[in-house]
Amino acid sequence: MQNVFVTGASGFIGSNLVDALLESGKSVVGWDNFSTGRTEFLAKAKQHPKFSLVEGDTLDLISLSKAMQGCDFVFHLAANADVRFGVEHPGKDFEQNTRATFHVLEAVRSNGIQEMGFSSTGSVYGEAQTIPTPEDCPFPIQTSLYGASKLAGEGMIQAYCEGFGIHAYIFRFVSILGPRYTHGHIIDFYKQLMDNPSLLKVLGDGTQRKSYLHVQDCVRAILHVTGLQLAAQAKHRVEIFNLGTDEYCTVRDSIGWICAKLGLTPNLQFSGGNRGWIGDNPFIYLDTRKVRQTGWATNLNIQQSVESTVDWLKANEWVFEKPAVSV
Amino acid sequence: MQNVFVTGASGFIGSNLVDALLESGKSVVGWDNFSTGRTEFLAKAKQHPKFSLVEGDTLDLISLSKAMQGCDFVFHLAANADVRFGVEHPGKDFEQNTRATFHVLEAVRSNGIQEMGFSSTGSVYGEAQTIPTPEDCPFPIQTSLYGASKLAGEGMIQAYCEGFGIHAYIFRFVSILGPRYTHGHIIDFYKQLMDNPSLLKVLGDGTQRKSYLHVQDCVRAILHVTGLQLAAQAKHRVEIFNLGTDEYCTVRDSIGWICAKLGLTPNLQFSGGNRGWIGDNPFIYLDTRKVRQTGWATNLNIQQSVESTVDWLKANEWVFEKPAVSV
Repeated sequence: MQNVFVTGASGFIGSNLVDALLESGKSVVGWDNFSTGRTEFLAKAKQHPKFSLVEGDTLDLISLSKAMQGCDFVFHLAANADVRFGVEHPGKDFEQNTRATFHVLEAVRSNGIQEMGFSSTGSVYGEAQTIPTPEDCPFPIQTSLYGASKLAGEGMIQAYCEGFGIHAYIFRFVSILGPRYTHGHIIDFYKQLMDNPSLLKVLGDGTQRKSYLHVQDCVRAILHVTGLQLAAQAKHRVEIFNLGTDEYCTVRDSIGWICAKLGLTPNLQFSGGNRGWIGDNPFIYLDTRKVRQTGWATNLNIQQSVESTVDWLKANEWVFEKPAVSV
Repeated sequence: MQNVFVTGASGFIGSNLVDALLESGKSVVGWDNFSTGRTEFLAKAKQHPKFSLVEGDTLDLISLSKAMQGCDFVFHLAANADVRFGVEHPGKDFEQNTRATFHVLEAVRSNGIQEMGFSSTGSVYGEAQTIPTPEDCPFPIQTSLYGASKLAGEGMIQAYCEGFGIHAYIFRFVSILGPRYTHGHIIDFYKQLMDNPSLLKVLGDGTQRKSYLHVQDCVRAILHVTGLQLAAQAKHRVEIFNLGTDEYCTVRDSIGWICAKLGLTPNLQFSGGNRGWIGDNPFIYLDTRKVRQTGWATNLNIQQSVESTVDWLKANEWVFEKPAVSV
């Protein structure tokens, strides 16, 4: 891995990965359509001599293939990353996740690139029977369009590995927190409390149990694991890793940490039920023994990750503005 | 289920399903683009007053939605059905299977249809660790573009069930044999032996173990299971069934039965290795206890299914001609 292509380079995880890759001495080509990514997240990378940025859409296969020329590793992170609103626009997960991943694979293949990494999700486990959920848990049933679109991506990547000799790393994330966080429950709560510090409306009954990981721990895991070149030796040329912390919290725990950080004591109004939205999983907790056995460990626990996110939002309230559309 | 829509109606399994649905008193709308289907397979159905045929492509969502109007159950069987040649045209499985299934789901949703059935495949298990392979085996790795495209279809269907209250039946088939069989190893061997009765070239070493099911048993299972309305009571509104025989054979067994039926004793030339093609699974044997527990059982074993297929090919050599493109 020397010349690395990153789709979704201006996104939350993508931009953190770009910075870490540059720090470790790699050359990086960033690719993004800036539909949800933020040009500000690449401000540091843009100063680096080994970074270049190409604005383009993953659904434009010809431009994508051309931009990828000369790269030897592709991280495919571009996606519609919000699990919650799939039923409002079912075509979005299909186009931006499933179809986009097919395009990335075709571009990888046409450029003769041998290695890639993919950001999948713990949502592919649906409502897992086995908790904590290991990578080889019983064949799951999909409960969200987002999870289904990531599963479709995983399957295509695996088949390309078998068919075309590509090596791939698939990372199934829990929700990621930390600097450059731009969607999810903390930002929703933060926005509500900016508007009205005395009331917080919460989806579900607050007992939903979730696991979170700090983006710095996430990015360190990705660089650590891909550096070990495990996929080259794997039976099907693909290695799948859960990425998460070795703990979980409830939505009520998270609310407590957020409000303490902000010095607020709002009234809480729960919508009720143990699911926040259609396809919400009331208990997400991944078994992360596989990645831990490679020598990686978290530096930050969930409380620290939530607090770090609130700190970052406080210092970067500009992210609440409509994103700029041009680089 | 009264007014049934069948995609891939002029295909091997589709046309057999259409005939069985009509026999059981249902009204049927057949949908096909005749890219691989055969108008001859619908000759009997076309005589039936409760059958209508619409020629169209599943990738044309507007026409598909319109044709589906008034139906209350959709069987989505249209697909690129050949597992072997994925690496020669990776876009085919994506377009004709993954994207086509998304279109069927959108058409089902826009028409307010509550129930559907889907022809998936045992190929979604990749090279299963557990044999016989149950529906809830460990989360598999995809080894073929065909399997990956069917897995993508399964996942989307499951997410639509959760998100939009649809009830679905997913059937994971072994290879199907019997009348109207048009692709697979028997037809390949038959064609070779028509050209040269003294030599048969075989992919792999002939020890690959496969399971097969007769199309009549397959169609009976589909009608039996969907008639039980199990999906309405299932946790995620979806029921998945393996469909296969409770046995397997080797490629050499199958060759023996075919040659005996044809009265030939060709020399056998094996290409070697335990895989016939990239992504070939040297041992496919599904655990079919779940469907058997509903009361269904096979009428025909694998040898009878192979022999029935050879008999049908002998009586219908016209299928070796290029298919007609118009209805």
